[in-house]
Formats: sequence, structure tokens, C-alpha cells
Amino acid sequence: MPYQFSQVTTTALPVEQRCLQDLRLAPVRRRPTQFRLLQQNMLAYTFDSFVPGFAASTVINETPFAEVVQRPIDNADAEGALLFGADYNVGDNAKRKVAGDIFEVVTHAVLWNMAARWNAYMSGAPWNTRPRFPRPTVRPDPARQIAVLNLPRGYDWVRLLVPEAQQSINDIRDNLEARHGLALPTSTPDIAVVVLPETEREDPSWRGELPNLTIPQQTVLRNAYLRLAGRIEPGELIFALAVKRSLRSDRLYQPLYEANVMQLLLEGFLGAPRVEFEVQTLSLEGTAAMEIYRAASLYAVAIEQQSLAPGVEVAPAAVSAIHRAVRDLYIPESARHLAQRLLDFLGNRMTAI
Amino acid sequence: MPYQFSQVTTTALPVEQRCLQDLRLAPVRRRPTQFRLLQQNMLAYTFDSFVPGFAASTVINETPFAEVVQRPIDNADAEGALLFGADYNVGDNAKRKVAGDIFEVVTHAVLWNMAARWNAYMSGAPWNTRPRFPRPTVRPDPARQIAVLNLPRGYDWVRLLVPEAQQSINDIRDNLEARHGLALPTSTPDIAVVVLPETEREDPSWRGELPNLTIPQQTVLRNAYLRLAGRIEPGELIFALAVKRSLRSDRLYQPLYEANVMQLLLEGFLGAPRVEFEVQTLSLEGTAAMEIYRAASLYAVAIEQQSLAPGVEVAPAAVSAIHRAVRDLYIPESARHLAQRLLDFLGNRMTAI
Repeated sequence: MPYQFSQVTTTALPVEQRCLQDLRLAPVRRRPTQFRLLQQNMLAYTFDSFVPGFAASTVINETPFAEVVQRPIDNADAEGALLFGADYNVGDNAKRKVAGDIFEVVTHAVLWNMAARWNAYMSGAPWNTRPRFPRPTVRPDPARQIAVLNLPRGYDWVRLLVPEAQQSINDIRDNLEARHGLALPTSTPDIAVVVLPETEREDPSWRGELPNLTIPQQTVLRNAYLRLAGRIEPGELIFALAVKRSLRSDRLYQPLYEANVMQLLLEGFLGAPRVEFEVQTLSLEGTAAMEIYRAASLYAVAIEQQSLAPGVEVAPAAVSAIHRAVRDLYIPESARHLAQRLLDFLGNRMTAI
Repeated sequence: MPYQFSQVTTTALPVEQRCLQDLRLAPVRRRPTQFRLLQQNMLAYTFDSFVPGFAASTVINETPFAEVVQRPIDNADAEGALLFGADYNVGDNAKRKVAGDIFEVVTHAVLWNMAARWNAYMSGAPWNTRPRFPRPTVRPDPARQIAVLNLPRGYDWVRLLVPEAQQSINDIRDNLEARHGLALPTSTPDIAVVVLPETEREDPSWRGELPNLTIPQQTVLRNAYLRLAGRIEPGELIFALAVKRSLRSDRLYQPLYEANVMQLLLEGFLGAPRVEFEVQTLSLEGTAAMEIYRAASLYAVAIEQQSLAPGVEVAPAAVSAIHRAVRDLYIPESARHLAQRLLDFLGNRMTAI
């Protein structure tokens, strides 16, 4: 039931399901932390009855997304005030970190549910209308199913690719290392959308909308990427998303750089179509993000300029493919808006599959 | 005299030369700031008798650079304690920001003095031996003089270039904008080292080692870039430096991205030799910086891979020029070490001029 803080629920909650861990008699060495925010419990407590965007209530689905993301933090604070009174305190840094992770998990859950709905329809089931989203106009086809994967921090997205593609990239890297002592490290977008491999198309778990964000559902979300690692064709990584709750000016560049590397590897070397890389945030903090993200993909610019040089031939397709490195900077208004946006994207993109 | 806090000096100091401004009766709207750190006065107070690395004392010249950068902050704190007692307080964020700027200015001053010494020798003067650095083995030649420029925040380094080069880059940008609606924004390295234009070679001000960091000397440092804007050939921007006091993982990428853009424009489009782009910091904060900065320059990788494709011809010189985007991540041990490093770099690089 929660979502909003419930004193009745919290009072009845087993200690191990609480949003806070009392560390005053179990302190962390060299840390002043007295209470720890338990992110998974906070999500399970707050979203024990629905996934945002897919609740029965339109009001909840259209709540400003920043408020939805803040809700688990507020609930933890309310639990602290109830159970520990004036003793309760959690540092701002800890809250910011957890809020960033919650933003990422809730975003993943919203996209996951829309993907499940899309997949069910593509597999021949009727279009689920609760809550109502416009039915896709794309002809249903099981080959058009997708998966939304939350990639863990430090993961190399190249490991999602089929072995031959990984090998090609490793060849490039080995060549760089051997001939020049150089690396081509990749970090990771937070969320990747991929076309579902053929052998997964019958598996109903890709078509199941999550009813809530309790611990078992969070586990489904967190581990989904493991089921598809090593099985994605380069052209089937159709969308990458960097999720950053706030974008100070020096934080703009990691997604921009990573988009450039992905485009160089996937488009430039493996011949994949355009890599759609997007950045999602809640707050711009007055940065020049909009302008910086108009930046062209460096790989594409290099190829285009090469094509203008005398004596050099470049395939016209390569030249026509010039595009932005980061396709858009998106600030979701609400969970519903975020879900709708994925649906729109799929309606356009999946006609090509 | 200061460097170390001097109660006698501070007590005799006119109010307008103090390190702190008392804002309690002149508060800033919507800010709780009670005392403002006056960065220029702090530098003038602390370094009123020498430039680090060029002091008479070897002990001072070899003090850990982090300590040297911290010294003006410590002196301001000591002034606060002396004049305002328990009332004195300055926020950690304000101190961090000022420390970052001080790191940049002191770095510039150290490099400036080594450049001045180098230029004097290149112009036919004897090698200055106080303090002693090894005399360059490069044959003196006035054409080998250089300038070290501190570029202000938000400056576009392209504006340093001669008009024809700026025009070429603007053509590329206009083409991207007109044909694709894209931009190719550049930000700026903090410090640029350039070959001195021919018309400046007789000007003795490029050969004057600064005696200290009092206000007039700071002005010389801050405005030097204005004297050379629009006068640098693409091949004469020989070194770029990003100065970041600490490198959290998300701050690694701005210099990496900027190095890639510089290399694409200068090497790829304007035919300049390798752009040496370095990052200097005091603290790694456990990041993977060393590994990430082994990344190859994306432009160079794109060209190399193009050259391996069937039916494409790329000049062998372009292929052989493949290199790292960020040449090195440097943590200066001391001001002396930093000065020596520039001298070593010039000894290698300027033989090519």
C-alpha cells in the first residue's frame, strides 16, 4: 500500500524490511554514518503496489518524475523521525547518491513495463489497455520484441555483443595495443535497449509487466542483462541511455565521450546503423548542456571531411549517416511521459527490423 | 616576505590587501557567505617574494606541490583566526573552488618562468642558473621562443589561431550546421603553450622571469593570451594542459573529449602535427584515470581503420600518427619538478621548429 509514508505499515514492518539501518552500535570503520539508507527496501516500501506510469491512478502516473524519485527518500526520512526522533540524521551526500540510483532503477522499471507490453502485443496478444497507451501501428511480429537492460557500473557494454562482434572489437583493441601501446576503453551507458535474440522470443518472462518494485521484481530487473550477454548483434543494440540525476558542467562529458566511442565501434567498425544515445536527467543546473549536446559524432565528422579531401573515396552511405553523438537530452515530466516516449521510439525504430 | 603566515605583516596590511573580505555588514543576496576569500590577495600575500620553483631556497622549490597550493588557503584561515577569532568561517566549497584556481595560477606562473628562461637563452642571452636547471642542448634560435598562456574559462581556443585557420574551422562548423543542423563546440584547455609569433620575438617581456605573484605580475599572467589571440598557426599550438585539482571519475572525461576535438580539428582538418594534450592533477581519488587515459585519439583510430578497409586510400603519414588523446596524467611532485618537465618537453619538441 505505501507510496506515501504510512505510520501503520512502518510500525508493523520487520526490522529487516525497514528503509533505515541503525548503525550506532555497529559503526563503519572510519565513517561517521549513524543511519544507512537501504535503497532496495526503500524502493520495495514505496512501490509495493505499482510501478510508476503503470499504476491504476492517473494522478500517480502523471506526478512530476522528480517527486516520484524523491518519494523513497522522504519515506526513509519519515521512518527515521518516527523511530529515532531527533537522533535521526543522514548526510546530504548519502541522500544524493541513493536518489541517483533510485532515479536509475525507477527509470528502468518504467521502460521495462512498456517493453513487456510491447512484446506481448508483438507476440500476438491483445494490446493491454490498463493503463491506456495508444496501440502501436507497427504490425505485430515476434521478431520485433525487445529487452531493456540496466547495465551495472563498470560493465563493458561490448560484452553484450555476440562473440564474433566482441572478437572484432578485441582485434581492434589488440592492434592498438600491439602497434601503438594504446587502449580503447569503453565504459557503459546505464540502460541499453536491444532487440530480443531469436532464441528468447518464446520466453514469456520478457512479456511480463512488473506489478511492483518489491525485492523479487528488483532482482528480475537487475539481472536481466546477464540473460542476454554475448547474444546481441551489433545492429540490435538500438538505444543507449545515460541516466544522471543532475548534470553539472563537468559531468556532461562522460556520456558524450561514451556515445562517440560506441558510434566509432558499432557504426564505424561493425557497420551497424545509427547508435541512438540519449541522456536523461532531472536537473540541468544552468549548464550549457543543450548546446554541448548538439555536438556531431566525431567519427562521422572525420569520415565526412575525409570524403571532401582529394583522392580519397568514402562510401556515400557513411557520409549521409552523419549525426549528433547524443541524440537528445531528455527531462521526463512524469513516468507516464517516459513510458510513452519509449513507445514512440519503438513505433518508429522497429519498422526497420 | 610571507609564504608562511606572518602576524606582523597581516597586522600592518591595509584592509584592501587582506586575504579575506568581511561581508557580515555587506551580505550577498540569498547567500549565507560571511567572509569571502580574495584569491588575488591571497596569492599576492603568500607569494610576495618568489614564484615557486624559482625561489632562492631549494627547500621551498622542492616542497610537495599540494602543500604549496594549500598555503594561501592556510594563510587566509590564519588571518581569519587572528582578526575575527571564533566568528571566522568559510565554507568547504568556497575553499575547494579557490584552491582549484590557485592550482591553475601557480602552475601557470611556474611554466611562465621556465618559458621566460628558455626564451632568454634562445635569444642569445646566457643560461640563467639561479636556481639551477640543466642548460638545454638545443641550439639557441629566436624562432624557438614560446609563450605559456592561461586561457580564461569559457574561452574558445580556436580564437588563438590565425584568421585563415579560424576560417577553415568555421567552414567546417557552418557546413555541419547547414547540412546536418549539428555543432562542433570546443571548450578550452586551461593552459596552452604556443610558439611565439615572429613579430613578438624581439619583445623582452616574453623573456622576463616574474619575481613574485603580486597583483601586477598576476595581471601579466592573466592577460598574456590576449596579446597572441588570432596569431598562432595550427602547428604552433604545441601543448595543451588541463589543470584539475582533483579527478573524480566523472570529471575525467571533459579533458578526454576536448583532446579528441582538438586533435580532430588541428591534426585531421588543418594538417598540424600531433597535439600534445596533458592532464595535471594533485589527487586521483581512486579513479581509473590512468587506464582511461590510455585511450587512443578517436580521430586517429577512425583513420587507421579506414586505411585497412578495401578500396580506401589513406596517406601513410596519417596512419603512422596514431596516438593517445591524452598524452599523460601528471601529478607534479613539486614546483621544481613541474618546471623541469616543461624544460624536458621543450628540449625534445623544439628541435622540430
